[in-house]
Amino acid sequence: MTPAAETAPTASPAPFRHTLRVYWEDTDAGGVVFYANYLKFFERARTEWLRALGLGQQALRESTGALFVVTDTRVRYLAPARLDDLLEVTVQLRAGGKASMTLVQEAWRGDTLLAEGEIRIGCVHEGSFRPRRIPTALMNATA
Amino acid sequence: MTPAAETAPTASPAPFRHTLRVYWEDTDAGGVVFYANYLKFFERARTEWLRALGLGQQALRESTGALFVVTDTRVRYLAPARLDDLLEVTVQLRAGGKASMTLVQEAWRGDTLLAEGEIRIGCVHEGSFRPRRIPTALMNATA
Amino acid sequence: MTPAAETAPTASPAPFRHTLRVYWEDTDAGGVVFYANYLKFFERARTEWLRALGLGQQALRESTGALFVVTDTRVRYLAPARLDDLLEVTVQLRAGGKASMTLVQEAWRGDTLLAEGEIRIGCVHEGSFRPRRIPTALMNATA
Amino acid sequence: MTPAAETAPTASPAPFRHTLRVYWEDTDAGGVVFYANYLKFFERARTEWLRALGLGQQALRESTGALFVVTDTRVRYLAPARLDDLLEVTVQLRAGGKASMTLVQEAWRGDTLLAEGEIRIGCVHEGSFRPRRIPTALMNATA
Repeated sequence: MTPAAETAPTASPAPFRHTLRVYWEDTDAGGVVFYANYLKFFERARTEWLRALGLGQQALRESTGALFVVTDTRVRYLAPARLDDLLEVTVQLRAGGKASMTLVQEAWRGDTLLAEGEIRIGCVHEGSFRPRRIPTALMNATA
Repeated sequence: MTPAAETAPTASPAPFRHTLRVYWEDTDAGGVVFYANYLKFFERARTEWLRALGLGQQALRESTGALFVVTDTRVRYLAPARLDDLLEVTVQLRAGGKASMTLVQEAWRGDTLLAEGEIRIGCVHEGSFRPRRIPTALMNATA
Repeated sequence: MTPAAETAPTASPAPFRHTLRVYWEDTDAGGVVFYANYLKFFERARTEWLRALGLGQQALRESTGALFVVTDTRVRYLAPARLDDLLEVTVQLRAGGKASMTLVQEAWRGDTLLAEGEIRIGCVHEGSFRPRRIPTALMNATA
Repeated sequence: MTPAAETAPTASPAPFRHTLRVYWEDTDAGGVVFYANYLKFFERARTEWLRALGLGQQALRESTGALFVVTDTRVRYLAPARLDDLLEVTVQLRAGGKASMTLVQEAWRGDTLLAEGEIRIGCVHEGSFRPRRIPTALMNATA
C-alpha cells in the first residue's frame, strides 16, 4: 500500500492525540457510531495534527492553492462506540514522500481500541487536482 | 417570514414529487431518521425540481457563477421514519421574488405526513456570496 | 410556535456556550458550512448543556427509557462559515413545559452572528415515541 | 484480508448495479464528493443488493434480531466526483463464510472508475453485537 517513494520516519515519536465526544449525529439505528464516521473522526484528528504543526488548511489553500486529498483508506472496526462516549483519536506518521504520506490512526475509548486505520493523503493543486509537492513545513516537521 | 418582495404564484400546480429510500446513514441511535436529515431530503427534491425545470446547479454555476443558498428553514417533525422506508418528498412554490423564493416541502410515507417545512432560498454570486437575480429560466418556469 | 403549556423562565441567565471547530466534513461545494449542519452544531451545544445540568442522554435513556426528540426547528442563516473557523454556539431556554421546551440557539464566529435558531424538543418513551414528562432534574435546573 | 473461513463463489455473475445522484450534502469545500461518503454510496448499493435478494434489513432485524455490521473497509480514490454527477455503484461477492462475507464495490461515472473498495460485513445479534450465522436466504442466494 505504501509506494516506494515514501520512506519511514527515522524516529517514531508518540502519536498525536485528539479527544472528541460522540453525538447523536454520529450514531445510526444500530445504536452505535456509524462506521463511515470514523473517517470523519480520523480527519478531525489529522486536521488538528496539521494545525499543531503550524498548517491551517484553509490558510494554506488561500496562500498556495494546495489541497490535501485522501487517496486510500483502510479501517478495521473492532468494537462499537455509543452516544456520549469520549474518544481519543491518534495520528502517527508511518511513511512519507514528496507528494504523499501514510498515517496510522486509532480510535480509543479508555483502554478499548475501537477502530484502526491507515490513511494515505496526497497534495494537489485545487481546481486541477494535479499532484504537487507536500508543503515544506510539513516535510520538515515530520522528517 | 416571506418578505414583501416575494409574491404568490397565480396558480397552484400539483407539487413536484421525489421518491427516496431511507438508508443506515440517515438514521440515528433513536432508531429513526435523524431530524437534520430531512433538510437533506428536502434539498434532494428541490435539486430534482430544478433539474426538471432545466436548471442543473453545477452547469448553472459553471456558466454564470450563480449559486443557490438557503437563507431560512423551518421544519416541523410529525412522525418518525425508519430504515428501509420509502419516502415521497414534495416541492411547491409558495412565493417568489427577484432574488429569493419560498418553498413548501413535505415528506410522506404512504398516507402519513412525517415532516413539513418552509425553505427560503436566495441566489448569490459564488465567492462573494452577494445576492444576485434568480436565473430567468427559473422565474419564467415558476411564473 | 410556543404552545401555551410552555412558560417563559422567570430569569434569563447568560446563555450556555459551546465551542467547536469547522472541519472538512461540515463543508459543501459552495466552500462554506452546509446549512443543515448548523442543526448538528446546535445539537452538540444542547447535549453539552444537558450534560452540564447533570443529564447524560445515554445514561438517562438506559435508566429511564426517556429520549429527547426535536419536534420543530427554525433556523435563519446570516453569514457563511468556512473550514477551520472556530465557532461558539449558545443555548438559552425560552420557554418550557411539562413535556416540551423551546430553546434559542445562535452560532457565532467572533463578533459575527452566523445563524440563529429556535429548537423545540420534547421527551418521549423510546420504542413507542409517546410523549412523557421531561425529567425532573431538567425541570428543576431550568426553573 | 479475507479469513480462511470465507470461500470464493464458484461462479462470478455480473455485479449488481445501483444508480445514484450526487447532491450538495455529498460534497465538501474541495468542490468534490467528500471521500467518506463513498462508504455511504457503497452501502446504499449493498442495501439494494440485499433487497433484490429478498432481504430487507429492517424486516430481518424485526423478525430475527440479526444485524449486518461492517468489520473492515478499504477504499482507493481514483478520480473526484462533482455535484449533479450520476454514479453507478456495483456490488460483487468476492468470498463468503458462515458469519462474514467480503464484497468488492466500485463507483463509476460513465467509463471513469472513481473509487473501488473491499468491504467485509458480518452478522451479529442486535444488542449484544455477538456474531451469528448469516441468514440462510443470503447464503443460498450467493452460493
